[in-house]
This record gives sequence, C-alpha cells and structure tokens, in this order.
Amino acid sequence: MPDRIYNFSPGPATLPQEVLKQASKDIVNFNDKGIGLIELSHRSKEFMAVADEAESLVRELLEVPDNYKVLFLQGGASTQFAMIPMNLLGADQKGTYLNTGTWAKKAIKEANIIAQADVAYSSEDTTFNHVPAQGDYSVADDSEYLYFVTNNTIYGTQFKDMPVSDKMLIADMSSDILSRKIDISKFGIIFAGAQKNMGPAGVTVVIIREDLLDRAPETLPTMLRYKTHADKGSMFNTPPCFAIYCVGLVCKWVKANGGVEAMAKMDAEKAAILYDMIDSTDFYKGHAQQDSRSLMNVTFNLPSPELETQFIAEAAAQGLDGLKGHRSIGGCRASIYNAFPKQGVLDLVAFMQEFEKNNS
Amino acid sequence: MPDRIYNFSPGPATLPQEVLKQASKDIVNFNDKGIGLIELSHRSKEFMAVADEAESLVRELLEVPDNYKVLFLQGGASTQFAMIPMNLLGADQKGTYLNTGTWAKKAIKEANIIAQADVAYSSEDTTFNHVPAQGDYSVADDSEYLYFVTNNTIYGTQFKDMPVSDKMLIADMSSDILSRKIDISKFGIIFAGAQKNMGPAGVTVVIIREDLLDRAPETLPTMLRYKTHADKGSMFNTPPCFAIYCVGLVCKWVKANGGVEAMAKMDAEKAAILYDMIDSTDFYKGHAQQDSRSLMNVTFNLPSPELETQFIAEAAAQGLDGLKGHRSIGGCRASIYNAFPKQGVLDLVAFMQEFEKNNS
Repeated sequence: MPDRIYNFSPGPATLPQEVLKQASKDIVNFNDKGIGLIELSHRSKEFMAVADEAESLVRELLEVPDNYKVLFLQGGASTQFAMIPMNLLGADQKGTYLNTGTWAKKAIKEANIIAQADVAYSSEDTTFNHVPAQGDYSVADDSEYLYFVTNNTIYGTQFKDMPVSDKMLIADMSSDILSRKIDISKFGIIFAGAQKNMGPAGVTVVIIREDLLDRAPETLPTMLRYKTHADKGSMFNTPPCFAIYCVGLVCKWVKANGGVEAMAKMDAEKAAILYDMIDSTDFYKGHAQQDSRSLMNVTFNLPSPELETQFIAEAAAQGLDGLKGHRSIGGCRASIYNAFPKQGVLDLVAFMQEFEKNNS
Repeated sequence: MPDRIYNFSPGPATLPQEVLKQASKDIVNFNDKGIGLIELSHRSKEFMAVADEAESLVRELLEVPDNYKVLFLQGGASTQFAMIPMNLLGADQKGTYLNTGTWAKKAIKEANIIAQADVAYSSEDTTFNHVPAQGDYSVADDSEYLYFVTNNTIYGTQFKDMPVSDKMLIADMSSDILSRKIDISKFGIIFAGAQKNMGPAGVTVVIIREDLLDRAPETLPTMLRYKTHADKGSMFNTPPCFAIYCVGLVCKWVKANGGVEAMAKMDAEKAAILYDMIDSTDFYKGHAQQDSRSLMNVTFNLPSPELETQFIAEAAAQGLDGLKGHRSIGGCRASIYNAFPKQGVLDLVAFMQEFEKNNS
C-alpha cells in the first residue's frame, strides 16, 4: 500500500493530513509540556484553551450569532434525535419532520416516543432519491419546529436551499456542516456528529438558540438538558477531549484554506467532476435526482450487482477505498467531504472510465 | 521541561507511554494501510477488529462472566447516573445508595428525578472522609439494588471490600476499574468512565447482566436503553472509535504487565510509599480515615492553605504536576492510577521531605 490511500468512507471519513500529523505529535507531548494531549485534565488551562479555541473557530467559520450557544456533546446525532423533543416538546406538542432518509426516520421515531412527529413529506416510496422543494409540503400551525436533514449520507441527496418556514428550523447537518454558508438565525438548533466533516467520531456539535435552553421539563435528567451543558461551557462533566481538540484542528485547517465559502466552491468542483462522468455514460447511473444531488456523497449504480462488487474490489486494490454503498440501497457511494482531495476524485473518474472500457 | 513530567491529575490522567506512542503512530497510518485510525469507518473490518479486541481484553482482564455484556457507551458516568434508574426502576420503585461523595450524590439526584433513591448511609457530615463498613447500613427489602462508588476520587476514599447484600450491586468504578479483582457475578451493572484507569475521556465501559436488558420501559428513547447497544455490539450508532481503540491499548498494556492482580500489587506498593510518608510526620495530614484510604487518589493537607499553594507550585516547577486538590475540599491530591510510575511517587516523597524541611 502507498503511504496514503484515497478513503471514500461516509464517516468516520478522511481528515486533512495536517490534522493527523499534528494530533500524532500532540498525543505524545502537547506543546512540549511533557504530557500527552489525552492525559491533560479537562480543567487544566492547557485543555481549556484548546476547547475555547475550538468553540471560537466554529463560531467564526459558521458566523454563529451571539444569542446562540455552541456545545460539544456526546452520544452522536442519534442522541440528539431524542434530546430535541425531550427539551422542546411537551407530550401533547408536535414537531414537523421531512422524511428524506434513514436518519430523518430515526429522528421521527424518537419524536414519537416522546411527543408527536408530524411527517409533512416523505420520499420513501422513491427510495429517498430526492428532497422536497419549497411548496411540496406545509407545516401545521400548531407545530413547534420544522426538522430536516440537510444532507442524506446514505442516499446522496442534499437540500440545495434550506427550507423556508415561519417556524424555527432544526437541522441535522452531520454530513455537510462546514461545507456551506448558512443563516443560523433561521434555526433553533443545528447539530452535527463530527465524524464526517468536522473531526473524528465521539463528539456532536450543537448550536442552539439561547431562549430554547429553558424549555426542558423538570423531569428531564441533568445530562439530557441542553441548559446543563450551556451553563458549564460543555464542561459539566468530562468532555470528549480528544474529539473536541480534533474539531479545533479541522476548523483551523478550514480557516487556513479559505473558510466555508472556499470549501463550498471546492466541494462543488469535486462533485461536478464526478457527476459529469456519471452523466456522460449509461454504464453508471446516479441514484439521486439531479436537483437533489449531494455534493458530499455521490451515489451511483453499475449495470449489475456483480459488476458493482467487482468495481468496489478493483478500486480498493488501486487505493480507492470505501466505495461500497450503504446496505440499505447497495450500489456505490463516493463520500467526498471537505478534506477529501480533488486528486482522489480525478483518480476515481479515471478508474471509472477504465473499468467501463474493460467491462461493457 | 523534560520530555515527560509526572502527571498526578485525577482524570483525564497519565496513560502508559507505550499506549501514547502506539496511538501517535496509528493516528497517521493504521497498520500501514495508508489510512489513519480515526479515519476508519466504524464498520470496516479493521475497526471492528479493534473494537472486538478491546471488548475481549476487558472480558479477560476482569473475568467477565458469559451472561454479562460489555458495552462501550458515550456520555460519561454522569449519563449512567440517569440510565441506571431509567432502565431498572419504575417511577414507584427504589434503589439504595451509599452517599460517599460528590459522584454518589449526583447519582442520587438523578435517581430521585426518575424514581426514588433510598440513601442508606452518608459520610457527608465528616467531609466524606470514610466509606461505611459492612453493618453500618441496611438495604430495604423493597429496594431493587445497592448502588455505591468503589473509589471516591475527590475525597481519596475507597471500599477495600465490596459491600455484601442479597440485592444486586451496582458500582461506579470509574476511578479504580482494572486495579482490583472483583467478583462480577454479585453485580447487576458496573460502569466506568475510561479517563482514569482505562484510557482517554470519551467512552464509558458498562458491564451489565443480560437479564437486565429487558427491563427498560417502552417510553425510553432508543439511545438510553442498554438493550439497544447490547443488541448491536455497541455499534447501534457511530461509537467513539478512538477512545475504544485506546481502551484496547491500555488493556493490552495491563495484560503485558501481569494483569489486574499485578496492577493491584503495584498500586498497593505505590500508595503505601506515600501514606507512610504522610504518617511519618505531622506536617502532612491525610484526609481519609486510615481504613478507607484510596490506593488511587491520596488526599492530604499541609499546615495552611498558603503552604499548600506554595507546595503545589514548587512541585509543578519540578515536573510533579496536577497535585491541587478538588475545589470542594482544597488541599492536595496525588492521583496514582495503574499507569502512574512508581518513580514518580518516589520523587514526590523526596520533594515532600525537602519541602517540609524548608518550611516547618
């Protein structure tokens, strides 16, 4: 194997090599202090500075307004599926959900355990191959929020424009945070598991409007209240220090490379190379409808499952790894988040052309 | 600063240097596969092998019986404080708690949010300077379990012998797991935040008897059910991969160094050196009663708070770091978990003798 392969995994995913190298050094001896980063007390001034910097960079890159808290929590997006209704909905209240894939469905399930999920749109009967356009659904007057998943990792679809509603928006941005400019003031909560576009697995970034912190009922356990974490700067208990540190490093890398707008431009470029290839032939077929195509996860099929298996194996042998689609839809998927290099996309396209020539 | 200082932090804490060096290498290129450890998909065969090995080693080192699951969860011990009553108690049921310090108190608070905590003993009126002996308390017939904290990090106390009860035991072993042999068959649940004796912050190891998995009420969100995680081998959602990997490395190190019994012997030796020093003079005074002394966290005071501040600063300047006691009791604390080297304890004792000579 070469020193570095191209890793198309959907998450945990490719990270910038600079981030890995810095982490490699700091783990053994942080700032030449004679102590490893993961050995630092979370209350030490060294680690507090790491966490503060990570938060500041998230705020800066995403232009987070002052009346929003940025939290570093544990438990993944899956825990947010429950925490959101637990904090925001009484048992007789409801939130509106757009069912655009597996992760939306899971969020709907949790909302229905705690309160009521009003599903205003579903693309399930077309194997989630698109997201709704404005006007395809309506949000009930008595709904507390409109919940959606900005990018659907499994199906390779993405909201190009954010839904517009007079209700507050709540978004799972696990797989496209830091890849697009957003107007956070329209949102009550934005959350993202870090392991796709922000860092390693083990931390969830939650951006929450401050007035929502007081809505949790008295019966909610301490760790499940956003307020607990907001009041203590995400240090109510020992936080996932290493993952937070890595989020800080990734944010530094994003900033050094031009910020979110530069990421968006490069992501669009990379995705276009791949979609142009797919559109240029009948051998490869994109799963997502054109207007719903994701810039993060490119899903496609070959003429047969056998050819797909062969394609994935031959690609891996050439250092193009992790191209297998999610088990729920099969096929192939190339995840090309911010940190995925353009050269890897070019190499994949060259491989696709060669594979088509040899097998059609 | 030297390449490596002695880090007496209570957690996150000192890890074996071999573990740090291996992690440093694997983060950039895991098994020479051309991909960093934290970039591996959690469903890849490489990471599955890492997680399986970590679980096997925990099972082997702690002699976990076959009818117990070993889970790697997120959210720290603080989340377990709530998950335990949420999974095991109906609103009208109760668990018995021994209040031996801050962490026990927090667990009691959560149990009272969800059901009822019956506090059978408290050492709060003596600043938690001891743990109860067998016979100091009784467990009500209608209690579902007896909950206790095996080692109290803040106060430096520890149960030398585990409580005996006909009810199942539930133990927070965050700060002394892997440091002592235990008969797990007496326990319903044992849990431990990894960041003291098992690894970095970001993962909680939960050992749970299988018959308890079905006790959660239908109204409990998916991520808060132990069964969710048990059924999926801790892979229901993306787990904290790096922290699990490190737990595996720490377990390998424990095994290579003789296992839990060898750790217990070495821990007793290290603690004795420090307690003997404290007992040999009136300048230093131990906080914990002799029969409750912790082998993990040695708490002590100097003649005045001013001398304590000076002591902590001068020690740090000599590379003996993190000796400040918890803000709730002040004074000094030396945390000397499994991975803390004996030489660091000897150096601390030499410094203590020198400091006493210069300041008494």
